[in-house]
Amino acid sequence: MFTKLSQLGEFGLIELLKNCRGSGAAVVEGRKPRGVYGHEPYVVHGIGDDTAVVPLDARRYLLLTTDMLLEGVHFERKAPPRLIGRKALACSISDIAAMGGVPRYALVSLGVPGNLSWTFVRDVYQGMDALARPFGVAIVGGDTIKSTKVVINIALTGEAGKSDVVYRSGARAGDQIFVTGPLGKSLSTGWHLKFTPRLKESRYLVRHVKPTAMIDISDGLAADLGHILEESKVGAVLEENEIPRRAGANVRQALYDGEDFELLFTVPRRKAAFWGRQKQFRFYPIGEIVPHAKGLLLKNKTGALAKIEPRGYTHF
Amino acid sequence: MFTKLSQLGEFGLIELLKNCRGSGAAVVEGRKPRGVYGHEPYVVHGIGDDTAVVPLDARRYLLLTTDMLLEGVHFERKAPPRLIGRKALACSISDIAAMGGVPRYALVSLGVPGNLSWTFVRDVYQGMDALARPFGVAIVGGDTIKSTKVVINIALTGEAGKSDVVYRSGARAGDQIFVTGPLGKSLSTGWHLKFTPRLKESRYLVRHVKPTAMIDISDGLAADLGHILEESKVGAVLEENEIPRRAGANVRQALYDGEDFELLFTVPRRKAAFWGRQKQFRFYPIGEIVPHAKGLLLKNKTGALAKIEPRGYTHF
Repeated sequence: MFTKLSQLGEFGLIELLKNCRGSGAAVVEGRKPRGVYGHEPYVVHGIGDDTAVVPLDARRYLLLTTDMLLEGVHFERKAPPRLIGRKALACSISDIAAMGGVPRYALVSLGVPGNLSWTFVRDVYQGMDALARPFGVAIVGGDTIKSTKVVINIALTGEAGKSDVVYRSGARAGDQIFVTGPLGKSLSTGWHLKFTPRLKESRYLVRHVKPTAMIDISDGLAADLGHILEESKVGAVLEENEIPRRAGANVRQALYDGEDFELLFTVPRRKAAFWGRQKQFRFYPIGEIVPHAKGLLLKNKTGALAKIEPRGYTHF
Repeated sequence: MFTKLSQLGEFGLIELLKNCRGSGAAVVEGRKPRGVYGHEPYVVHGIGDDTAVVPLDARRYLLLTTDMLLEGVHFERKAPPRLIGRKALACSISDIAAMGGVPRYALVSLGVPGNLSWTFVRDVYQGMDALARPFGVAIVGGDTIKSTKVVINIALTGEAGKSDVVYRSGARAGDQIFVTGPLGKSLSTGWHLKFTPRLKESRYLVRHVKPTAMIDISDGLAADLGHILEESKVGAVLEENEIPRRAGANVRQALYDGEDFELLFTVPRRKAAFWGRQKQFRFYPIGEIVPHAKGLLLKNKTGALAKIEPRGYTHF
C-alpha cells in the first residue's frame, strides 16, 4: 500500500513522514507511544512495505493494509461494478499475500454519486463478496457516503506467522529474482479488473522456500523492484529475454506498465534447484540481485548491460 | 460507522446486505466462511454497531472501524487542514470509545487534488498525529492518491475486554438514558472539528458502571437513540428539559443536528445513584427506556408526550 504514498515523488512525503518527528504519520520503527490510557501500541514494521506489521500474539503478527481506488484513476465508471468491487478487494488481498500472510477481515468504505442506481452499489458489494468467500475474507463492516465520483477504500487485516512474514528489505547479492506471471498491458487488456491475487503462490513460497524479499507488482516491475532494491540496499540485473510478457506486450510495457499484481520475490541461489521438484506453480526467473553500487541494470539479448530507472506507472 | 450505511435509507441497503445471502457484504453474525486456505474468520458482531467485533484472544476482542470523510460533506477545504486531519481520526476513536474499547492502530487513506500544496497534506497528517499521540494510537500506514476533491479514509483497530464490549442492543425498559455533553449546533460552532473523543468517559463507564447500550452521537440524538431502540427492541421517553444544549442551540437542534460526538448510553436505574459518588465526569440524564411499543417520545415542560421521529442529520 505504501508504494503509492512514495509516489508523491516531488513532495518526498514518505521521507518527510519518516524523518520528521512530530510531523504527520511519523512512525518510527519500534516506536512505543504511551497513550493517556496506559497502553502501548508497538509497531513492528511501519511505512515502507505492502502492509503494516503489528503484534498479535506470541506466534503471529497482525497485518494491516488500506487501499483507496478512485473512478477515473483505478477504474472507469463504465466498468462492470462487480469487477470494480472485485478489484478493490483483490488489490488488498495481494498486499497481504506479498507479506507472506493470509487475509482475514475487510472494511469497505464506498463513496457514490447520488445519481447512481442502487444496483451499482449492490453489484460493487457482490463483486467483493464473490472474491472474499474463496479467499476466506469476512467483510465485517463499512461506511457509505455520497460523493461526486465513485471512491472505494478497502482496509484489510491479515495474519502471518512471525517466521513467515516477508519484508522488502531482505534481498541479498546473489539472490535470484522471480515473478509469478506475465507482465505488461494489464490496463489495456482488462487484467487489472480480473486478476486473482497470488495467495496460493505466496502460501507455497512461505512454506517451502522462504523468499528473502517480496512485493506485489502494482506500480510496474521496474518501480516495484526499485522498492526492494531501496529497502534491501542492493542492485539488480534483469535479463530482458527472461521477463515473461503478456500477449502483445513489449519489454518496455513489461517493465513499466502497472497493475500486474504478480508477486516479485527473491530467493537465495542455493534454493533455486528446488523449483524443479514442484509442478503446481510456474515461477519465472528474471534476473539476479547484485551489490548496491551497480543499481538497476537490464541485460539485453546480446548480453549488453544498460542502466534503467526504477520508475513506473504512477497513480498520482 | 454503520450508521451511515443505514442512511442509504430508500435503498434499505443495510437490510439488503444483512438479508441476502451471496449478495454483497452479507455478514451473517456468527458466519464462518471457510476459505481455500483453511482458516475461518469468525465474526462476533458485524453490521449494525459502531465497530465490527472479531476474535483476538481468549480475553479480548479486536474492534475494526472505518470512516470516509469528504470535502463539502464532512468538512470544507477552507477549514484548517490540521483540524480536518484531527477530525477524521477523532471520529474513528469515538467509534471505538462507543464500543467500550481502546484504540490501537490507524491506517490513513488520503485523496488530494494535484493543485493542493504539499503543506496541506503535511498539515492533515500533523493534525492526526497530534491527536493520535495522547490517545495511544499509532498511525501505521496509508495510501495517498490524486482525487478531484479531498477525501480521507481512516481505518482504526481497537481492543476491548470480552466482558467490557458494549453493543447497541442491550438497553432494557427501565434503564436511564445519559449523554456526556451538550448537543446541537456542532457544525455551525465548529465543535465537529475540535471535539475530544469521549474515551476517558468510556473507560470510566466500562470499569465502574457497565452501560447496557452505547453509541456515539454522529447523526443526531434522535437518530442515534433510534439505532439503540431498533437494535435493543425498546422505546424511550426523552425529557425535553433535561437535554443539555450547546450555547444557542434549541431543542430541535439538540435532537436533530449531527456530529456532536458525545456518548449516548443506557444504565439500569439501580446503578444511577452511583453518579453522585464521582466528580470526574458529568453525565446528563435525559430520559428513560420504555417498552418497544411506545416508540420514541418527547416529554415537554408541561409533561405532555409527543411522538418524535428517530431521524437526524444525514450524510447521504
